[in-house]
Amino acid sequence: MTILPDGGLFLAELDEQLLQPGTKGLPIAQPLRQHMVGVQRWNVLAADTSFPVAVLKTSSLLHNLGWMRAFCARYDVVLAPHGKTTMSPQLFGAQLANGAWGITLATAPQVLAAARCGVRRVLLANELVALADIRALLALLRDDPGFELFVLADSAEGVRRLSGAAAGAGIGRPLPVLVELGIAGKRAGCRTLDDALALARTIAAAAGLQLAGIEGYEGLLVSDDRAADVERVEAFLAQVSALARQLDAEGLFGGPQILLSAGGSSYFDLVARAFGAVAGLSRPVLPVLRSGCYLTSDHGHYLELTAELAAREGAEAHAADGLRPALEVWSIVLSRPEPGLAILSMGKRDASYDLRLPLALAVHRPGAVHPAALPDGARIDKMNDQHAYLRLPDGVDVQVGDLVGCGISHPCTTFDKWPVLLLVDDDYNVQRAINTLF
Amino acid sequence: MTILPDGGLFLAELDEQLLQPGTKGLPIAQPLRQHMVGVQRWNVLAADTSFPVAVLKTSSLLHNLGWMRAFCARYDVVLAPHGKTTMSPQLFGAQLANGAWGITLATAPQVLAAARCGVRRVLLANELVALADIRALLALLRDDPGFELFVLADSAEGVRRLSGAAAGAGIGRPLPVLVELGIAGKRAGCRTLDDALALARTIAAAAGLQLAGIEGYEGLLVSDDRAADVERVEAFLAQVSALARQLDAEGLFGGPQILLSAGGSSYFDLVARAFGAVAGLSRPVLPVLRSGCYLTSDHGHYLELTAELAAREGAEAHAADGLRPALEVWSIVLSRPEPGLAILSMGKRDASYDLRLPLALAVHRPGAVHPAALPDGARIDKMNDQHAYLRLPDGVDVQVGDLVGCGISHPCTTFDKWPVLLLVDDDYNVQRAINTLF
Repeated sequence: MTILPDGGLFLAELDEQLLQPGTKGLPIAQPLRQHMVGVQRWNVLAADTSFPVAVLKTSSLLHNLGWMRAFCARYDVVLAPHGKTTMSPQLFGAQLANGAWGITLATAPQVLAAARCGVRRVLLANELVALADIRALLALLRDDPGFELFVLADSAEGVRRLSGAAAGAGIGRPLPVLVELGIAGKRAGCRTLDDALALARTIAAAAGLQLAGIEGYEGLLVSDDRAADVERVEAFLAQVSALARQLDAEGLFGGPQILLSAGGSSYFDLVARAFGAVAGLSRPVLPVLRSGCYLTSDHGHYLELTAELAAREGAEAHAADGLRPALEVWSIVLSRPEPGLAILSMGKRDASYDLRLPLALAVHRPGAVHPAALPDGARIDKMNDQHAYLRLPDGVDVQVGDLVGCGISHPCTTFDKWPVLLLVDDDYNVQRAINTLF
Repeated sequence: MTILPDGGLFLAELDEQLLQPGTKGLPIAQPLRQHMVGVQRWNVLAADTSFPVAVLKTSSLLHNLGWMRAFCARYDVVLAPHGKTTMSPQLFGAQLANGAWGITLATAPQVLAAARCGVRRVLLANELVALADIRALLALLRDDPGFELFVLADSAEGVRRLSGAAAGAGIGRPLPVLVELGIAGKRAGCRTLDDALALARTIAAAAGLQLAGIEGYEGLLVSDDRAADVERVEAFLAQVSALARQLDAEGLFGGPQILLSAGGSSYFDLVARAFGAVAGLSRPVLPVLRSGCYLTSDHGHYLELTAELAAREGAEAHAADGLRPALEVWSIVLSRPEPGLAILSMGKRDASYDLRLPLALAVHRPGAVHPAALPDGARIDKMNDQHAYLRLPDGVDVQVGDLVGCGISHPCTTFDKWPVLLLVDDDYNVQRAINTLF
C-alpha cells in the first residue's frame, strides 16, 4: 500500500528491513519486515500498538504537501525543505515528489544519510568546517558526479578549509558556496554587508569553489512581538537583496543562477515576496525557501505562526485551510495515584519539551466509538525521562489503561526521539511505518 | 581490542554490523564494519572524527564500575542499574560483568531490546499497562523459560490486566510483581500504606502473579534543600521497610526472597543503609539499588549529588575518589561572528539541555599538545536544534575550526541522542564504538 509518493528514492531497502522487538511503538515480540506493518491491521485506538507511539496522519501530510506546492507555485519560488526536521527518507521522498527542488540539511552526517537514500540535491544550510566532514562530503561528490551540494561560509578560515580540500579532491566541478549573511546578536553569518562582500570576493577567488548565492535565516528573529518581527524580517531580507545586487554588480557569482535562500517555518511568505522581487541581475535569481516544519506542522508554536502567515496571505491564500497538525504522540495512563493526576507512559524521550510541553488533546477508552476531547484544564505540566504528569480538572473521567493523544510543539525535537513512526488514516488505522535516520 | 568486559551478552552481531555513512560522529563516506572502528587510529583531538561526537572515557567507566561494585559489596546490596540511562548493550554487559544482579528498565520496548542482546534478568521499574506490551513481554517469557522479569503495579486495574494476560499465557511460572509505594504529590505508586497493603493482597491473590517485593523511587524527592531531602528520603524508606514487615506478617510475599528496590543516582547510600537494616522477615530480603547515572556520572547535576553522597559516606568510602564524569560531547567552532560569541556544531539534538545546558570544559586547536581549559566565564547560554552559543570572556582565544569539549548534566538525555558513541582513552584515541538501542 503506497500512501505517500516516494520521489524516486531508494526506500525498498528500508521497507525490506526487519524491525526488531524493542522498536518504540511497535507491539512485536518477533522481528517484523517493515513492509508488513501495513497489513497487521493495527489500530492505535484499539490499543493494538505499544504506548507511547508516534503517529503521523496521512491526510494531514498530503494536505500540507499540496498546500506548500501551491504556495511555491503562487510565488514562483522553490522549496528545499529542511530535512533536519524529520530526517525521514520516506518524507523526503514525498517532498521531492511534490516538487521540492532539493533537501536542506544541517550537518555533514545528515547529508550523507540523505544521499544514501537517493536525495540528489542538498543545501547544507550550515558552515562546513570539520576536516573529516569536508573530506566525507567531497568523497561523496567525487563518487557521484550527479550529486549536487551547496554549502555555507561566513569566515575566511571556513573558505580556506573548503578550498584547500576541494581544490585537490578531484570532484570535477567547483563546490558551490553561499555566503551567509547574519544578524547582529544572533547565530552565524557575516554581520555587515561589507564583511559579506569581502568574504564573497574570497570565495569567488578561491580555488575549487564557486560563489553560488547568499543565505540567511530570518527565523532567528521570531519573538513574541510579531509586528516587530515582520519589520525586522523585511529589513533583513532587504539586506540580502541589496547584497545580491552588489555581488552581482561585481561579477562575483559563479553559477548559472543566483541562489537566494532563507525561510524558516514562520515567515517564509515574507521571504517569498522579498526574493521574488529581486530582478534585473545578470543571471536568473532562484529563491529557495527552507521551511521544515510545514510538513507536519504542530499543535503549538508553528501552528500559531503559520496561522498568522495565512492571515497575512489574506483570502487569496488558504486562510481557512492552513497547514494541519500531522504529528501526535499517544500514550497510556499508567497510574491515577491521586485525584487530579494521571501518569502517562510518555516522557522526555518521546515528545518535545523545549518550546512547550505536549498538549493533551483527547482521551480514549478502547472500545468507545471516538476519543473524547480533553478540556483546556487538562494539561501536562511536567515530564520525566519516561513519564508525563497530566493534571485533570474535577469530573474528567480518565482511568488506568485509557489512551491519551497529545499534540506537540516543535516537530524537530519529537522526530529525533522516534526511529520509526507510524502513518495512520483518520481512524487511526496503521498504514505503514516510516523511518528516521538520526 | 576488548576494553570493557561483555558480561556474556550477544554483542558480536552489533560489532559485525556495517555502520553507515551519516552515523553521527563517524567520519566515514563508506560503510564501515563496527569492529573496525578501533583500528582506524582516529583521535578526537586530531579532528579525525566528525563533529559533534559523543565520547566515553574508558578509564572513567572502569573506575565507576569498580566504585559501584565496591559500594554494593560494602553494604551487601545488589545493583540492577537503570538501563534506560544508556540503553547500550555494551554498557549493560560491562555492568553485568561487574556484578550487576540484573538490569532495570522503564518500558516494554526497552525490555525487549535488552533481552535481544542477552540480558537475562530485568526489573521493569514501571507499571505495565498496555495490553500489546503485556502480550509482547509474556511472549518473551514463554519463549525463554530462563528469562526473569519483575514488574510493578500500583492499581487494581493494573493487576487485573497483568493477571488476565499472565494466567493464560503459558509462561510456566508466576509473573513476579512488586507493589509500588509512592509519595504524595509525586509520580506513580500507592499513596498510603493501607492502599499498598490492599493492592498487595490483590496481587497475592491474583492468578498468574506473585508478590515479589516492594518498589519505591526516592529520587523524586531530590530538591535544592538537600538536608530536607535526606530527612524525607529516610522517612520514605522507613515506610517501605514498614510495609515490607506488614506484608510479610500477612504472608503475602510469594517468591523465594523479598525484593526491596529503590535508589536513583543521588541518594542510593541512604537506600543501601535503610534496606540493609531490614531483618527478621520470614525469608531473605534482597535490597536492589537501581542507579543508572553512576556509570558515566556527568559534569553537573549528578556529579554534585554523588559528591554529597561521598561526603555522607565519610572517609571509609571514596570521598577523595568518587564517581568520575565519563561522557563528553565535542563539537567544532563553526563561526566566530562577533566578539565574545562562538557558534558550535552541537545543539539540542546532541547534548542534554533539560536540567542544565552543556558545560564548556576545554578548547583544543588540533596540533596543540593539550586542550586548554576554558575559564568559568566561557559558557553556553543557548542551544538551537543543531547549534550552541558559546559566550567568551575577553582574551579567550577561540577560532573557527577549534574543538570544544563539553560536559553534560543528566546523561539520560544525551545518550538518547547518539546511536553510536565512541570509547576513548585518556588521550582521546578512539578505541571502539558502542551502540544505543533507543
